[in-house]
Amino acid sequence: MYNSEQLLLRVKSALSEIKFDNNNPNELYQPITYTLNLGGKRIRPVMVLLACDLFGGDIETAINPAIAIEIFHNFTLLHDDIMDNAPIRRGKETVFKKWNTNVAILSGDTMFALAYKYLVKSKAQNIQSILDIFTKAAIEVCEGQQYDMNYETEYNVSIPEYIEMIRLKTAILIATSLRTGAVVAGADKTDVENIYLFGENVGIAFQLMDDLLDVYGNQDVFGKKIGGDIVTNKKTYLLIKAMNEAKDNDLAELKKYFSSTNFNDEEKIKSVTTIYDRLGIRESTNSMINDCYNKALTYLSKISVDADKKTIIKKYADQLVIRDF
Amino acid sequence: MYNSEQLLLRVKSALSEIKFDNNNPNELYQPITYTLNLGGKRIRPVMVLLACDLFGGDIETAINPAIAIEIFHNFTLLHDDIMDNAPIRRGKETVFKKWNTNVAILSGDTMFALAYKYLVKSKAQNIQSILDIFTKAAIEVCEGQQYDMNYETEYNVSIPEYIEMIRLKTAILIATSLRTGAVVAGADKTDVENIYLFGENVGIAFQLMDDLLDVYGNQDVFGKKIGGDIVTNKKTYLLIKAMNEAKDNDLAELKKYFSSTNFNDEEKIKSVTTIYDRLGIRESTNSMINDCYNKALTYLSKISVDADKKTIIKKYADQLVIRDF
Repeated sequence: MYNSEQLLLRVKSALSEIKFDNNNPNELYQPITYTLNLGGKRIRPVMVLLACDLFGGDIETAINPAIAIEIFHNFTLLHDDIMDNAPIRRGKETVFKKWNTNVAILSGDTMFALAYKYLVKSKAQNIQSILDIFTKAAIEVCEGQQYDMNYETEYNVSIPEYIEMIRLKTAILIATSLRTGAVVAGADKTDVENIYLFGENVGIAFQLMDDLLDVYGNQDVFGKKIGGDIVTNKKTYLLIKAMNEAKDNDLAELKKYFSSTNFNDEEKIKSVTTIYDRLGIRESTNSMINDCYNKALTYLSKISVDADKKTIIKKYADQLVIRDF
Repeated sequence: MYNSEQLLLRVKSALSEIKFDNNNPNELYQPITYTLNLGGKRIRPVMVLLACDLFGGDIETAINPAIAIEIFHNFTLLHDDIMDNAPIRRGKETVFKKWNTNVAILSGDTMFALAYKYLVKSKAQNIQSILDIFTKAAIEVCEGQQYDMNYETEYNVSIPEYIEMIRLKTAILIATSLRTGAVVAGADKTDVENIYLFGENVGIAFQLMDDLLDVYGNQDVFGKKIGGDIVTNKKTYLLIKAMNEAKDNDLAELKKYFSSTNFNDEEKIKSVTTIYDRLGIRESTNSMINDCYNKALTYLSKISVDADKKTIIKKYADQLVIRDF
């Protein structure tokens, strides 16, 4: 079996081999190449290979679906950045800022088609299942993004609504990566379902940790400016939980701060964090993460593969959920 | 065999049966339903069924791919309208105008995924070929749209460049519709190739006729305001041809008119049309359309099916190319 570092190298090598037939029109393929070279942890393709390897499949049969999912993921980021008006992604200008919105729309569309190109290329026996699984996930990711946009302007978002949104927007693609690897390897139906549910819960825990680190992370390790979500009034688990728990002065102050972006950033971050501290939001978020992750591990334990074979995938999930970056 | 009116009814009935699992989030599915209900001639899905029927296939096995191509086509229109900043499509507000750009981007993305959903649903034996063909076309359509955008600001676009752009942007999807129907029906490789090339040339002729009717059409029949391309300085076959042919005063005047949109619309249309008349642009465009269409018919004649069976598809192509609407 391969460890995740070896699989990451395999993914990186496959990504570096992506070539376009003629690179024309340049205006279309330049931003695609730029986007695919922005880097990132390549979590999803690594997960495709991890799951394939776990069930005894040949990882080479899973490499094209893995690349397909990574291209799709990068396409969603590209279009999300337009919708969120985000100027920076992974420390570099986003495509719509560097080029323009039209280029970002169209190169994104092309990447979506390219994702299918790699999926179809896989020539797997079970191509129909793989395509079904991927297409279902693609639609759900779009639904998640729509909910995320809706919640920007919605005052009352409940915790179940928020969890459902991050399930669709983030967790499902992680779950689908694992499911795809398992299907390629020919795992049985129950195992495929269990690794999907493992991934779904890992994905939710992963996003909650992202929310938490945005407030309580170590800036040098996290790589993003701490408090960004607070400054931009982003609905996160921490904010929704705090809104539910806060009373009187705390509630009034939260409402005040999240009604506008016309505050001194540092002061706003400090004040909101103080309220979060008083309400024990860090602890309750951590507890929610643990609950999700334990649920994930229950599904992992049900998978009919020797426990020692599961240590690689378990270690990888640990790194995603229990991290400070 | 079915005639095209019968096939159009079958397509319309299939389109009316499209349902979304839960229609949630509403903000995503409302614009999709709106877009799919805008109408149009449904040329592409009818062509899928025509080709399937021509080669003796059961049209019911081609209905899902037909719907997939129609959804994809409508997705491209939706995104193109954002890129072209077009307020009206088929007499109604475009999605980005009626809702907003973000909704238009995301509901378009979802439609692209839905197209694949219908494609995969087809359960055809040759699903891999069908997916390959479709994905190739999807990428080429994006390339065509990029060239179209490039040419908006490019001064010197040659006739071969223009033809290649409309081949990618318009003709290929028509050709792919026919190819898909043929593949579903199990036509042999040479026939599949010939019907594709027939469709490609019909598609080019169709777009050239669109360019021609925009200047010389009967407004009541054409349904669009005559001269729209002239007013907006759109690069069309007529303009590029005129720029190539014009000399001295005519050339200077064309350059003047196409350097700005700050002219009285009626006066600009009248003046440019007078130059086109003087240069014989109507005749040379008609001659180019005839050349393309004759080329198309040569490919049709090569197809190894009894000539009388080809009359339905020939009649349908006639209507597309030799039309005044």
